[in-house]
Amino acid sequence: MGYSMSNDVRPGIVLAAREIPIPTSVSPQAQAILALGPLSPPRAYPPIEDHDAWRRMIAEQDEATLGLLAARMPEGVEVETRTLDGGVNVYCARPPLVVPTDRRVYLDIHGGALITGAGEVCRIIAMGTARNMEAPVWSVDYRMPPDHPYPTPLDDCVSAYRALLLEREPGEIVLGGSSAGGNLAVATALRVRDEGLPLPAALVLNTPEVDLTESGDSFAVNLGLDPLLTQSAMPANLLYANGHDLREPYISPLFADLSGLPPTILTTGTRDLLLSNTVLMHRALRRAGVEAELHVFEAAGHGGFLGQAPEDEERLAEIRSFASRHWRSAE
Amino acid sequence: MGYSMSNDVRPGIVLAAREIPIPTSVSPQAQAILALGPLSPPRAYPPIEDHDAWRRMIAEQDEATLGLLAARMPEGVEVETRTLDGGVNVYCARPPLVVPTDRRVYLDIHGGALITGAGEVCRIIAMGTARNMEAPVWSVDYRMPPDHPYPTPLDDCVSAYRALLLEREPGEIVLGGSSAGGNLAVATALRVRDEGLPLPAALVLNTPEVDLTESGDSFAVNLGLDPLLTQSAMPANLLYANGHDLREPYISPLFADLSGLPPTILTTGTRDLLLSNTVLMHRALRRAGVEAELHVFEAAGHGGFLGQAPEDEERLAEIRSFASRHWRSAE
Repeated sequence: MGYSMSNDVRPGIVLAAREIPIPTSVSPQAQAILALGPLSPPRAYPPIEDHDAWRRMIAEQDEATLGLLAARMPEGVEVETRTLDGGVNVYCARPPLVVPTDRRVYLDIHGGALITGAGEVCRIIAMGTARNMEAPVWSVDYRMPPDHPYPTPLDDCVSAYRALLLEREPGEIVLGGSSAGGNLAVATALRVRDEGLPLPAALVLNTPEVDLTESGDSFAVNLGLDPLLTQSAMPANLLYANGHDLREPYISPLFADLSGLPPTILTTGTRDLLLSNTVLMHRALRRAGVEAELHVFEAAGHGGFLGQAPEDEERLAEIRSFASRHWRSAE
Repeated sequence: MGYSMSNDVRPGIVLAAREIPIPTSVSPQAQAILALGPLSPPRAYPPIEDHDAWRRMIAEQDEATLGLLAARMPEGVEVETRTLDGGVNVYCARPPLVVPTDRRVYLDIHGGALITGAGEVCRIIAMGTARNMEAPVWSVDYRMPPDHPYPTPLDDCVSAYRALLLEREPGEIVLGGSSAGGNLAVATALRVRDEGLPLPAALVLNTPEVDLTESGDSFAVNLGLDPLLTQSAMPANLLYANGHDLREPYISPLFADLSGLPPTILTTGTRDLLLSNTVLMHRALRRAGVEAELHVFEAAGHGGFLGQAPEDEERLAEIRSFASRHWRSAE
């Protein structure tokens, strides 16, 4: 359960204005990414109740993401869309050199602050994950706010896991996600455990947004330093929670009883706005007796160096190695 | 070997003045430590060549440390002083509930920026380490600058390891150190490997100062946030290196070929000035194929929360658990 929280307001540390240099301790490619500075300015979120404005903002962001993804389409990946009972789509992607009889599945829960990343974005990211993992991927196109707040997104992920269990042994499934997807991956595992279903072989949590209260120190320390995450996501968190307490365990799994979860790998970077989320989750898993390993990349922000630095490949190699050690049937 | 360095000067990120709150994501005891702010103001180091001034500064610091240690003397620890051939002292400490026939040894290399921590400070810290590790400890009172710069401190640590090998199997030895002691612990392991001696069972590196060039990002990002380390240690590093290139592998082991090193645990905190040192070392070990695990504590500075928070006990429990898995004869 972590530590009890204090409501005392204590004075913090006042830091003078200063310049943080581009570190020479990372690859030249990573330095080039860091030299770009914040990749997008902080934006004003719509008022919680203005759902039309949220829909417009989400559509704009997804369109922008599709533009970026179009420049780097994963090649050689076969992908098919399956529609589950209930109407949720799952994109099933198979990368080059993986045979159709390979029974491993990486169940991918996409990121996007619990509001973006649906549809075509989800489908293309599934293809990229298949290439990165060098394994078959199922990616859940879970429904999201404003039309489908909590618990629908989580219900959809659990439904996809149940559907997968009809076709695979639990030991053939690795469950993972990045950012908001990391939140839903843990929450899915908790629901699976609590509903008495067999757990997957392992969990992969990349810079997971497991604390929607944003209590972590890195939300302050790394603000302005993370190239990708340039502001709090609290409005999206509140939209998602839809009146539920942000500390509920299925909403902020950092505060859940984590006992019984499968072996977990966690990755982050020292400039990640979610650095605290990640290291706190690692500690909470260890306290719960879960086998959990942590990898922190120097000066990396949320999402590393956008896949453009050797550090990103190193991170993927760690994850593939971890998954390979835990997948029961490595083909 | 890490990444190639760039000599381009790129503009960094300019951060406006700001207040970093005391995070609620740590224990109340940890919050109380963080609320104290920097525990000592940055000080002016003496000019490199003014050895008398260095001796005075070192004596003052050691005296202050002894004053702090006196308030928390480890109880029930038996300690004896052994003088090795060559005159170096080793403090052999045995904690309560550990029998004299226990063959495990934790070979402790004390910290202190490669200049402080000798003599009585070393002896008392050995007693504390024995209690913390719940195991027999040998602590090396290695000679230091200004009178004994590199390579003498390292030579002394290697001599102590050689002496220990006469009495113990290598699998009975875990080698560890904090801060500057982490530097010397790795360098000792490298020398041991390179001289063809058998390696210890495991390495323990707490916030290790493995890069005396101070290239890491956290030297900038965490400056002012780490309660304990409030400035660069570069003058001490240069005094230690005594004209050698700071990037030499035995001086900054982060840049060494690390292949063949034993399993290693590394600990740090997100506010640690040596956060980058620690995570970069973890990555370098992994790239070299060494079994290495990383533990990062939320909002903790160099040296954690001064032993006054449950997070500190959690860190020690991880280290004890790690050592126990690797010590060949757990009594």
